[in-house]
Amino acid sequence: MPETASPQTTSPDASSSGYEPTDRTVPTRSRDRAAYDRETVHSILDAAYLCHLGFVRDGAPVVLPTLFGRVGERLYVHGSTGSRPLRTAGRSEEGLPVCLTVTHVDGLVLARSAFHHSLNYRSVVVHGTAYTVTDPEERRVALDAIVDQVVPGRSKDSRPADGKELAATAVVRLDLREVSAKIRTGGPNDDPRDLGLPYWSGVVPVAPAYGTPVPADDLDPSIGVPAYLP
Amino acid sequence: MPETASPQTTSPDASSSGYEPTDRTVPTRSRDRAAYDRETVHSILDAAYLCHLGFVRDGAPVVLPTLFGRVGERLYVHGSTGSRPLRTAGRSEEGLPVCLTVTHVDGLVLARSAFHHSLNYRSVVVHGTAYTVTDPEERRVALDAIVDQVVPGRSKDSRPADGKELAATAVVRLDLREVSAKIRTGGPNDDPRDLGLPYWSGVVPVAPAYGTPVPADDLDPSIGVPAYLP
Repeated sequence: MPETASPQTTSPDASSSGYEPTDRTVPTRSRDRAAYDRETVHSILDAAYLCHLGFVRDGAPVVLPTLFGRVGERLYVHGSTGSRPLRTAGRSEEGLPVCLTVTHVDGLVLARSAFHHSLNYRSVVVHGTAYTVTDPEERRVALDAIVDQVVPGRSKDSRPADGKELAATAVVRLDLREVSAKIRTGGPNDDPRDLGLPYWSGVVPVAPAYGTPVPADDLDPSIGVPAYLP
Repeated sequence: MPETASPQTTSPDASSSGYEPTDRTVPTRSRDRAAYDRETVHSILDAAYLCHLGFVRDGAPVVLPTLFGRVGERLYVHGSTGSRPLRTAGRSEEGLPVCLTVTHVDGLVLARSAFHHSLNYRSVVVHGTAYTVTDPEERRVALDAIVDQVVPGRSKDSRPADGKELAATAVVRLDLREVSAKIRTGGPNDDPRDLGLPYWSGVVPVAPAYGTPVPADDLDPSIGVPAYLP
């Protein structure tokens, strides 16, 4: 999306209610799309359940999609105790340097010029170190948060993990400290010289759509679809 | 998603028509969800236009959302010549080690137990080295591919980049060589002991939905919505 800055953007907010910008969280381009206030960051995170988690293995980057949950200023990711990133985080007291990114696509931005094509989007990028969570109560809270991030309220309407399942599950924590949001909204930024060209210009809105819930084959038919489903 | 393997999965295919599995592309868990055949990998990539690109900066991982395009066995990513990852790739003849990941969410999988909650998804993870593309013809093909990845056919119905725009745009290439797909489909994998619990179990389908195209404020009203829009 190598276009110049959009006029319809969110201004940076480095006030005390926000995250302190750092060299890593101030973009080299389109700085006027960056936001650092907690409300914006939390709202983007809370509208998602999937993140892309990056870490370094043998000097090379690895990016894996995974579920996450937010509890206040902490994000949690879980996985099998046998999975590579979680094993790596658990092995070291120094933790595992990670980058956790969440992205929503809100629209396809079609300009008259190929150059000004873009997306409307909301993203959050979190830099930091992931630590294995060992405290039993924090692990339970984290696992509930991950389930509730997918469907709010669901953790209360399912069987909690038992001892064997908890033993097989690694939970890591990433604090919200070095964080930025980036938002693009609005229409295409066509060059004035392109306005007379015979090409359609505008935005195609995009949003996730949830279909009719499909009950498991073995579900007791007397159990109806819960009201909390999307 | 720390559940055990699903019975409804795609089998590995390491035949000559597929990508050779490597230590990096064989998952430590749920191996029966992995696929290496070109058809599966291409179809997952071609249904997407957004990827999450991971690279290492100052020893730490960075994951950024960006557009991509596929041309045969090559992926292309573009950006401002001022952007950090593209500047890094361009600076060195050795290129930039990257991990490019594409994920589609197809369903929320709600099991009776919190532990077996999961997503239905299709993902592709590409490991490799990104090189700056300097050949003018390859750069044009790549930029068209990135626009057409968002909306097939659109590059032919927009103004191509001019010299100044091309000079401001960096294009990097990543070959499809070390690649895997991972797919989960089907219903929840509830434990037999949980089947009698009073919790709803099933799948909520998810898919991107495209809204009514919104023309730019300054669009000539005689230019109708193109048939190629989603």
